[in-house]
Amino acid sequence: MADAVLFEFLHTEMVAELWTPDPDPGSGGQKTCPSVLESVGFRVGQALGERLPCDTPAFREELDVLKFLCKDLWVAVFQKQMDGLRTNHQGTYVLQDNSFPLLVPMASGLQYLEEAPKFLAFTCGLLCGALHTLGFQSLVTASVAALPAWAGGWLRDGRPWQSTQQVSPDARVLLGWSPSAGAEAFSLSERSLP
Amino acid sequence: MADAVLFEFLHTEMVAELWTPDPDPGSGGQKTCPSVLESVGFRVGQALGERLPCDTPAFREELDVLKFLCKDLWVAVFQKQMDGLRTNHQGTYVLQDNSFPLLVPMASGLQYLEEAPKFLAFTCGLLCGALHTLGFQSLVTASVAALPAWAGGWLRDGRPWQSTQQVSPDARVLLGWSPSAGAEAFSLSERSLP
Repeated sequence: MADAVLFEFLHTEMVAELWTPDPDPGSGGQKTCPSVLESVGFRVGQALGERLPCDTPAFREELDVLKFLCKDLWVAVFQKQMDGLRTNHQGTYVLQDNSFPLLVPMASGLQYLEEAPKFLAFTCGLLCGALHTLGFQSLVTASVAALPAWAGGWLRDGRPWQSTQQVSPDARVLLGWSPSAGAEAFSLSERSLP
Repeated sequence: MADAVLFEFLHTEMVAELWTPDPDPGSGGQKTCPSVLESVGFRVGQALGERLPCDTPAFREELDVLKFLCKDLWVAVFQKQMDGLRTNHQGTYVLQDNSFPLLVPMASGLQYLEEAPKFLAFTCGLLCGALHTLGFQSLVTASVAALPAWAGGWLRDGRPWQSTQQVSPDARVLLGWSPSAGAEAFSLSERSLP
């Protein structure tokens, strides 16, 4: 069974070929467009979002969608379920992966932590694209608290996620969406995709 | 089980982002460098070649390597075995896939046939990279006789493969290698990787 290995090798090569540092944020300190890697992830997520729910019941509640992300989508891509799911019941969701496969090969250390964003961009886009297909326009962010785990977040209603309030030293994924997020864009750690 | 779908979606996006037409051949009508997609495939093939043979016995004969390509590698990437394997016992091998998954979604027709090379470049590099890891420097070519099947070939001792002599109207993969191929390069339909 080398499928997971194949995806990881492909992802590594995509990062090598497609990663470009985020451009300077605009006057409002917000990113104006997604990176190429995020866009690729977005389109792959859109396609997976169309394909996977065929076997699942209709998504009527946000919680159904979150379960789909944590189970079906994560298993399809990473062969594991998400390690944790929390919400503040105000549109912010926290999904935690303690052994994010795309960062597991990296050693821990500050110098590697600085390199981590390039290994998160595709997955941010992937989640955003899957949510878009399921009818939820979302803002997805990601950050790493400690290697080899990672954390990301998205917010409802376009409000930026305050990582200092919600991230503990261990790593987690934080997810949230807003159906009316519109064109609001975020800085490097708080991403937006159309 | 969405792994195969994930790879296909990723490959589609890689083609969209990384495909560039081959540059004009040099004075000898030979390609001077592999395309970006071939290079990506080459590195992924190298990595797969290192990972997969752990469970298999040592590769002493060319035939062992061909069996590895037709079974282990093809199953790992495409979830199916190669449909056919032939050789002229002079260093040219013919591997045939009658339902090449990366072309199956395409409709048949001349206009699509002209687009096919961009969907073959990654796999040419993949085979070449796996062979490189296993100690065989190779020249890999690919061509499509009919959609949705495909055909490719590589040659021993740097001699170009004469497709008119070996390709029948049905589709197949033609593979061959030369441990001493050196820097000899080929045109679009007869590829070389370092």
